[in-house]
Amino acid sequence: MASGLEPVMSVAELRAFFVEAFPQALGTSGDETLVEEISSGRVLIRRKVSEVNLRPGGTISGPTMMALADHAMYAVILGHIGPVALAVTTNLNINFLRKPGLEDLMAEARLLKLGKRLAVGEVTIFNEGEEADPVAHVTSTYSIPPNR
Amino acid sequence: MASGLEPVMSVAELRAFFVEAFPQALGTSGDETLVEEISSGRVLIRRKVSEVNLRPGGTISGPTMMALADHAMYAVILGHIGPVALAVTTNLNINFLRKPGLEDLMAEARLLKLGKRLAVGEVTIFNEGEEADPVAHVTSTYSIPPNR
Amino acid sequence: MASGLEPVMSVAELRAFFVEAFPQALGTSGDETLVEEISSGRVLIRRKVSEVNLRPGGTISGPTMMALADHAMYAVILGHIGPVALAVTTNLNINFLRKPGLEDLMAEARLLKLGKRLAVGEVTIFNEGEEADPVAHVTSTYSIPPNR
Amino acid sequence: MASGLEPVMSVAELRAFFVEAFPQALGTSGDETLVEEISSGRVLIRRKVSEVNLRPGGTISGPTMMALADHAMYAVILGHIGPVALAVTTNLNINFLRKPGLEDLMAEARLLKLGKRLAVGEVTIFNEGEEADPVAHVTSTYSIPPNR
Repeated sequence: MASGLEPVMSVAELRAFFVEAFPQALGTSGDETLVEEISSGRVLIRRKVSEVNLRPGGTISGPTMMALADHAMYAVILGHIGPVALAVTTNLNINFLRKPGLEDLMAEARLLKLGKRLAVGEVTIFNEGEEADPVAHVTSTYSIPPNR
Repeated sequence: MASGLEPVMSVAELRAFFVEAFPQALGTSGDETLVEEISSGRVLIRRKVSEVNLRPGGTISGPTMMALADHAMYAVILGHIGPVALAVTTNLNINFLRKPGLEDLMAEARLLKLGKRLAVGEVTIFNEGEEADPVAHVTSTYSIPPNR
Repeated sequence: MASGLEPVMSVAELRAFFVEAFPQALGTSGDETLVEEISSGRVLIRRKVSEVNLRPGGTISGPTMMALADHAMYAVILGHIGPVALAVTTNLNINFLRKPGLEDLMAEARLLKLGKRLAVGEVTIFNEGEEADPVAHVTSTYSIPPNR
Repeated sequence: MASGLEPVMSVAELRAFFVEAFPQALGTSGDETLVEEISSGRVLIRRKVSEVNLRPGGTISGPTMMALADHAMYAVILGHIGPVALAVTTNLNINFLRKPGLEDLMAEARLLKLGKRLAVGEVTIFNEGEEADPVAHVTSTYSIPPNR
């Protein structure tokens, strides 16, 4: 993880930002994906799992995990530079490691680099309580707008 | 593209497979994503775009494009090995290239390798009629079950 | 491929640039890797193969192919923006597809995007004459210095 | 990291394997790259840096880091399944994070999954003593031969 990073947003501020910026990403009950923790260079996000995300073989869909990882990356970046809505993903690479169980998915994002123009991070996705056996691992790059 | 590949499913068979296997991936009108063409080592898929997929700045969401690319890869593999529902994505790498317009997105998937255990392909995503300026490029690997 | 791109360097100019900038990348005979063609958004590079690059099982080493792909990306970018030695690779993703034969390797690089800050391209590596069955496929991103 | 992994080779055994399998990967003095530690799901490797690996701007070359990461992945896999020389890289994705200094490079590889057919890991590359500010991050997949 990159050293010397300090969050500039609280969990409550991140949650409020996402409710306003992405109302459609939330479930009908308004709470499908939720920032749970933020600390130096890191956020933890919970994704409640429902039948909507299933695919054949009973596993959670890949796109659900990719969306979750992208969300976690966005949260860890904004959490350290402030609510710059126009930061955009330029690259996302995901390795699917094992079938997730049907419990909630946790996504832990860590910044590897937070530069002026590019931010790079990794996201580990795991079923709650099974951090040692992740279901997917992601690296991702965001481009940060020049005049923030 | 890998040489010597022949499709074993028609466009109609692929469409029927996806309607049965992924009813939830389709829109309320049952036609959000649709296989349009299949040929040697290649499929073309259309994604109708609606306001649900938007994010700040007016662009189509990254997760929408990742899901589309995954769908196209799955289609090109099944179209060449038959409806093996348990083929699973092991890796997906996406580069976002430019903001898509609000027209339908097309995804053209090409097989780079179709082995006994692994299939590798690339997917180019573009707005209809703007093939020369893609909005995203994806490479992806699927693991193919041993006893098909 | 990105549309509307015009080369600004010739094959001879690219070759001269690489001889000067990377003398150590060349073999003792000065000709291990050689730009062969440049056209709109594209270069073709030849890598002469010798026993130095072999690994167990008789295949060409992965690092040899990664270095070749990186070289080809660098060449296609410089060929379209001029000899900006400080453009740097930010991401490289390689899929190894099949064992190469012991003939020369060709690397064809194509620009997917040539932006002000980032260039993205893909590189297909194949044994001469076997373009339809590539041995490896690469996507890569370069960061372009702001004040060129 | 994947849980429950136990090394089956010692540092001395890994070093002996690489000397025998890849004599050409070593420097003229026989010691350019050296396994330093192995533990559950993890190896640490040192790459001595010399002028041969430099490129314009004074940084270590990207291909040197890619080769180092591939070497570290190979070592962590063999260290946990035994000396199966025919395990092959299928995918390698590298993000270059910052310019390395001219000190030795360390590569720490961790297994994310060690399956029967595929092994997935990540490699963090850093200058000795600067683990918190890595210069590159890699994820990679190896295919493991069926009849080992």
